[in-house]
Amino acid sequence: MKNTAILLIDCPDQKGIVAAVSDFLFRHQANILHADQHQDSDRGLFLTRLEWDLTGFGLAIADFGKAFAPIAEKFQMRWRLELSSRQQRAAIFVSKYDHCLADLLYRHESGELGCEIPLIISNHREAERLAGFHRIPLHVVAVEEMGKARAERRQLALLKENEIDLVVLARYMQILSAEFVAQYPQRIINVHHSFLPAFSGARPYHRAFERGVKLIGATSHYVTETLDEGPIIEQDVVRISHRDQLEDLVQKGRDLEKVVLSRAVRWHIEHRILVYAKKTVVFD
Amino acid sequence: MKNTAILLIDCPDQKGIVAAVSDFLFRHQANILHADQHQDSDRGLFLTRLEWDLTGFGLAIADFGKAFAPIAEKFQMRWRLELSSRQQRAAIFVSKYDHCLADLLYRHESGELGCEIPLIISNHREAERLAGFHRIPLHVVAVEEMGKARAERRQLALLKENEIDLVVLARYMQILSAEFVAQYPQRIINVHHSFLPAFSGARPYHRAFERGVKLIGATSHYVTETLDEGPIIEQDVVRISHRDQLEDLVQKGRDLEKVVLSRAVRWHIEHRILVYAKKTVVFD
Amino acid sequence: MKNTAILLIDCPDQKGIVAAVSDFLFRHQANILHADQHQDSDRGLFLTRLEWDLTGFGLAIADFGKAFAPIAEKFQMRWRLELSSRQQRAAIFVSKYDHCLADLLYRHESGELGCEIPLIISNHREAERLAGFHRIPLHVVAVEEMGKARAERRQLALLKENEIDLVVLARYMQILSAEFVAQYPQRIINVHHSFLPAFSGARPYHRAFERGVKLIGATSHYVTETLDEGPIIEQDVVRISHRDQLEDLVQKGRDLEKVVLSRAVRWHIEHRILVYAKKTVVFD
Amino acid sequence: MKNTAILLIDCPDQKGIVAAVSDFLFRHQANILHADQHQDSDRGLFLTRLEWDLTGFGLAIADFGKAFAPIAEKFQMRWRLELSSRQQRAAIFVSKYDHCLADLLYRHESGELGCEIPLIISNHREAERLAGFHRIPLHVVAVEEMGKARAERRQLALLKENEIDLVVLARYMQILSAEFVAQYPQRIINVHHSFLPAFSGARPYHRAFERGVKLIGATSHYVTETLDEGPIIEQDVVRISHRDQLEDLVQKGRDLEKVVLSRAVRWHIEHRILVYAKKTVVFD
Repeated sequence: MKNTAILLIDCPDQKGIVAAVSDFLFRHQANILHADQHQDSDRGLFLTRLEWDLTGFGLAIADFGKAFAPIAEKFQMRWRLELSSRQQRAAIFVSKYDHCLADLLYRHESGELGCEIPLIISNHREAERLAGFHRIPLHVVAVEEMGKARAERRQLALLKENEIDLVVLARYMQILSAEFVAQYPQRIINVHHSFLPAFSGARPYHRAFERGVKLIGATSHYVTETLDEGPIIEQDVVRISHRDQLEDLVQKGRDLEKVVLSRAVRWHIEHRILVYAKKTVVFD
Repeated sequence: MKNTAILLIDCPDQKGIVAAVSDFLFRHQANILHADQHQDSDRGLFLTRLEWDLTGFGLAIADFGKAFAPIAEKFQMRWRLELSSRQQRAAIFVSKYDHCLADLLYRHESGELGCEIPLIISNHREAERLAGFHRIPLHVVAVEEMGKARAERRQLALLKENEIDLVVLARYMQILSAEFVAQYPQRIINVHHSFLPAFSGARPYHRAFERGVKLIGATSHYVTETLDEGPIIEQDVVRISHRDQLEDLVQKGRDLEKVVLSRAVRWHIEHRILVYAKKTVVFD
Repeated sequence: MKNTAILLIDCPDQKGIVAAVSDFLFRHQANILHADQHQDSDRGLFLTRLEWDLTGFGLAIADFGKAFAPIAEKFQMRWRLELSSRQQRAAIFVSKYDHCLADLLYRHESGELGCEIPLIISNHREAERLAGFHRIPLHVVAVEEMGKARAERRQLALLKENEIDLVVLARYMQILSAEFVAQYPQRIINVHHSFLPAFSGARPYHRAFERGVKLIGATSHYVTETLDEGPIIEQDVVRISHRDQLEDLVQKGRDLEKVVLSRAVRWHIEHRILVYAKKTVVFD
Repeated sequence: MKNTAILLIDCPDQKGIVAAVSDFLFRHQANILHADQHQDSDRGLFLTRLEWDLTGFGLAIADFGKAFAPIAEKFQMRWRLELSSRQQRAAIFVSKYDHCLADLLYRHESGELGCEIPLIISNHREAERLAGFHRIPLHVVAVEEMGKARAERRQLALLKENEIDLVVLARYMQILSAEFVAQYPQRIINVHHSFLPAFSGARPYHRAFERGVKLIGATSHYVTETLDEGPIIEQDVVRISHRDQLEDLVQKGRDLEKVVLSRAVRWHIEHRILVYAKKTVVFD
């Protein structure tokens, strides 16, 4: 397993930021593996992601904050330090359609997703066998029967118990309350089965079919309190024609949804995403 | 030049249509070059496009309608017969951005678009040199100064004089009145610089940039009286990232617009498009 | 389940084929659901695929051949009739990489692939748990230990016993002998992890990485006796950049392989593919 | 016009490079606009591109080399400094197919390509009118009549006279000699009408058609002495089907060629490309 540190920074753009940060890391013998930065000139913002090998790094992680504070203050940085050795803990929410769930679990098992998945939460029993195969507990929270408020309290309790960092909505067909979303800001990823902002809301494939579009899409995004309006992480499309019936759209769309959601999850757990101005920067 | 006939039919779906039509053509010695058909089972519709060589065809074009009438009546067909030898006459409307115009004129000159372009209409003078190079008259109709009603009367007069079959809006930034559109049903093609229905209306690149989408698109469609709501003919997209600024979107988008508009024009003049239920069937 | 008949024809192109066939079907009350045809003017070939509902069809399937013979003879047709009610029986071959296998099994279980999968054959034990989850027998045929000739005899015996129609090589890393291939002409589908004909043969990702290509691809094709030279069924690509290391190519490629192979399998079992002149026609 | 400096560096990777360079730039008040870097861990290489505003930069360009020398030496850098105010001078070579030429000239005129184009060289007269429209001298060098050696001497003389930085082969159908190529290392860009390394050499569309590929491509690359083997700058593909005849491939391919070549030219003149290990890094 990798043993690296990842430093994510955003701050007002000004001269000397890179010099200060890279000098700091150099003085502590950081062997930088990846560095990427982005400047938004309209907003005067500077954003960067730096990843270095912790082998030979001359500063204890516990001391990093104190040592870095003068630079952070000088440049008014918002920053966080992540360790690749500490795996993120993700909970997957699913309803009846399980293609994204199956896809994520396969990728997880084959080592493509470097996170832990301590639990799956569903409002249905359908995913039980699949969860069992992957040896991950499935918790059925029957939203319709319990009522949303009670169900969300139960879900949140499960998330706390399991120390969840990231919630992945893998075609979870319930809308989360603003209160729920507020507990996990920029830590809930949803996949919407359209090319947002086209066909936000319900039944996007039906509406795409009726509108006669020539491409269909899928979008993964962070969930905010406004439905389908959160920062977009990834999108992709596939060509269709008049020969494709509604069920063909649904089928072609499934492959998009899987790819688009799994990329978003991977980038998130690799700490590649910074959100600003309702948009994402994905450092690759 | 090709000397073919193209028969386009739509009618309620029932048994025996293909047998009747193909038997009719066979009896008149048609050498069929292309045949394509589409059935919309939801609506119970049958649509087809047949193209055959007129060399050796045993029926005078003038007599086709009468000879075909019994079949057309029996199956309640809407049909039309087009001749590849009769070139469509297209007028191009343009405002200041001339990349689509330049692209269409180049394709026309190189033989890729088998139509005549007897005139260009613009609300600006910018395109004069380009039109001159391609030896096509440019008519400046100053919409802002004349007022829309008067300008459209002038434009319509020019279209009649020139016996125009097809109006191509090549980034023409004025909205045509419902009365104008009604004169050329399914014969006005527009390019919109977004992936419709996302970002319909004004300033789509700006709004795409602000929304933080990861792909931008362009759409060519028939113009109807409702803005950006006409049947979509073609769409395409290109990937962008946070590194792309607004001007990069505009630039990448130009290449999409050119391709998407020119395909629509070509398919239209080759009589490949049938419209039904607010959608297009593009026979390839 | 659908209860349709599918008629696939190829023959020298001449006038009257469509008229004769459609008249034949009409006389027997066929309710045609899909019809597609292709003419290769260079080679003077006509190919078609017709699918009709068997409900109300006025000819017993057993009598079809005899009734259709005069037309088939007159036009020198090669033809076959397939029934959607008779599911194809597919065997999947796999080695250590199981992403295509997992993908196919998931699609099969979710109803996307309308075939039976009576067995999986592997030269390794790795897929055992996955096969078990999907309740499909896995037969380990240890090619390296047994020697290829003996292993292929064992494999062929398994295929015969299980009345296999189609062999799917889902990243099966052994090369089949010409004798084996000859037993299943146009009935073995392989996925190659490059955009053929680029990087045919071994280690395509390594070679793509070294060559510095900007897109990587995957190809599904029928297997012939010449490695990676069989008729191509489907291809797709994904963009890469200098930031992608070899392992990123491998990972991105996996998603291509899954999509490209599963499409080919689906089209094959839906009898959508005709092979001629070392190429495929895929009727959609 | 932009007034920026662009510093391109490659050197063995080691700690402290970024710190040293960014500190150097900071000490001279550089306002960095873009910075991108790439590390090739296999080869132990570090590559970077830095662009900063020259307004307020505290070092005369003439003194840069001397001031930067200690850092360059310490890290064994190969580096160069480019000024956006100094426009590159590009010569376009063309034969009979002029779609790439027309595309480049249009982009140039519309301001998309920030270079000068002092001349066009062709072995035919066809492009004369187009060159004239864009007010660029066309020099006809009749390779077939003069013989290649004499023709290349004439071409090289024209390039020297016009102080050409970059040679763009816009579907120039003659193969340049190794001697010619050696005069402009990594400064000759060609477009090949296939997805290299597939179908290198002659008649790629014909061979793609015969092979039955499902996508066709185009590739822009630096020219080296080995045909079609130079470092790839950009590639793109478009989907085709059995319905596409050879002429459709040629037509669809033209749109790819234009896009792929123009991107390469733009990236080159914006100093975004570094070549190493026969591959390109394209800094975006």
